[in-house]
Amino acid sequence: MMFWLNGVQRSVDEPLLSPLDRGFTLADGLFETMRARGGTVFRLDAHLDRLCGGARLLGIPIPPGLRDHVAAAARTAFTGGYEHASVRLTVTRGPAPPGLAPPPHPAPTVALAIAPLTESGAPRAIVATMASARRNEHALTSGVKTLAYTESVVALSHAKAAGADDAIFLDTAGHVSEATASNLFALIDGTLVTPPLSCGVLPGITRAVVLELAPTLGITVAEREIAEPELAMASEIFLTSSIREIAPLVRIATSAIGTGRPGVVTHKLIESYAALVRDECGA
Amino acid sequence: MMFWLNGVQRSVDEPLLSPLDRGFTLADGLFETMRARGGTVFRLDAHLDRLCGGARLLGIPIPPGLRDHVAAAARTAFTGGYEHASVRLTVTRGPAPPGLAPPPHPAPTVALAIAPLTESGAPRAIVATMASARRNEHALTSGVKTLAYTESVVALSHAKAAGADDAIFLDTAGHVSEATASNLFALIDGTLVTPPLSCGVLPGITRAVVLELAPTLGITVAEREIAEPELAMASEIFLTSSIREIAPLVRIATSAIGTGRPGVVTHKLIESYAALVRDECGA
Repeated sequence: MMFWLNGVQRSVDEPLLSPLDRGFTLADGLFETMRARGGTVFRLDAHLDRLCGGARLLGIPIPPGLRDHVAAAARTAFTGGYEHASVRLTVTRGPAPPGLAPPPHPAPTVALAIAPLTESGAPRAIVATMASARRNEHALTSGVKTLAYTESVVALSHAKAAGADDAIFLDTAGHVSEATASNLFALIDGTLVTPPLSCGVLPGITRAVVLELAPTLGITVAEREIAEPELAMASEIFLTSSIREIAPLVRIATSAIGTGRPGVVTHKLIESYAALVRDECGA
Repeated sequence: MMFWLNGVQRSVDEPLLSPLDRGFTLADGLFETMRARGGTVFRLDAHLDRLCGGARLLGIPIPPGLRDHVAAAARTAFTGGYEHASVRLTVTRGPAPPGLAPPPHPAPTVALAIAPLTESGAPRAIVATMASARRNEHALTSGVKTLAYTESVVALSHAKAAGADDAIFLDTAGHVSEATASNLFALIDGTLVTPPLSCGVLPGITRAVVLELAPTLGITVAEREIAEPELAMASEIFLTSSIREIAPLVRIATSAIGTGRPGVVTHKLIESYAALVRDECGA
């Protein structure tokens, strides 16, 4: 793993952070997890736009030159042998005296960690459970990728203890929302549907790419509320995230989805997505 | 401020934490904020019980000797001149490779920060706004003091921008829940009421003390759901937290509570609470 703190490359084995960093004490920050290929971060601008939107809500000033810093670090990692890499960018409000109220003049912390990945290839089919809790679509930070991932950590642990790979949340109104760190798409009655942002979902970058790609492949897509029982009627379901990309979901608890194997629409999108990544990353 | 990392006293000005600490990357941890007086932490056991309950949910092993460590550090801070102090204990799952899934064998991080406080005295009357968002009583981590405080940070910032000191959340069902880092009590029709834990509130240590003290002072108390319009009918409201203790709330947005000044029941509880702290801390 290669690591940069506030733009300076450091060994990740050293202690580097202040124990007063509000990212550590209050989850007062944001992050993006991206995928790089051949030294280029896929959809970097979309990730940074989302991060900056969250930073405006939180009132965290984004240091200048962030885009250039991330792009240069990805090239450095490629030169160092990382053909495929995960790129995790964290921006917090920085160190501050105790208390919930933000300091008037924050000095943000920018942490950038790049780790090698194996090429994604054909994603493994995964199984999910339904989370016993709800995503809060009425939160101020709904749809914002803050550091507050405790809820997802617990839901994922419960899912793994039940023998599954992931958990699916409903929102507080009972609509399907998202998985612990992925968006959800379901093929229902021939239309590919995904929950709208009003259902407490993160505006996923891979989600946006699928919404953009599907029509070019003749697949009808719609953002609409999905009632929980509709999942059982789906012929295909897949989850999307920047690292896992498009992952076929073949079973929810004991119910097989469709044939219980990745479907043709999912495969078509996986291939098309991979081609797009190769195209945009020039590799 | 005095600081200890994993039991060893350190300067808080040094970088001490790994950037891979899951407390920093995923809010994967818990904390307690306590008050010490004369070298004794008020209700330390209650705080540690709550922390351990959260640690069981998250699956974070609590290092042995934690109680003795906190108690000894509070005495050290007193010897160093801190007659009154805030004691912030943070326990995270510790450093781990990237990814949401917890490592199989975590090495938790224990961070303890003690800062001097002035004696509380008669708390300043505060004003609040209603938060434009909801507490999620249907979260797995509802009622657990995890590091995920982003939502409260944003709500508090909005409240301060509106000229208030704090914000009051409703739960997703529309009942009164709590403030950004305090529980709420309201005197309605002569009964002191506070929302039950089912309304997404933290099981506050000061809240528990008030529930225990009030009957000894002839004040009838009840944990029950509070509809938002009932707040306007309250003759007194106060907020409770370990640092702020019992703080009279005299106005919500433009509506004065009761006479618009701290009420007699609130004053009675403030005095009784202060006496209890002096008694239990032997100072």
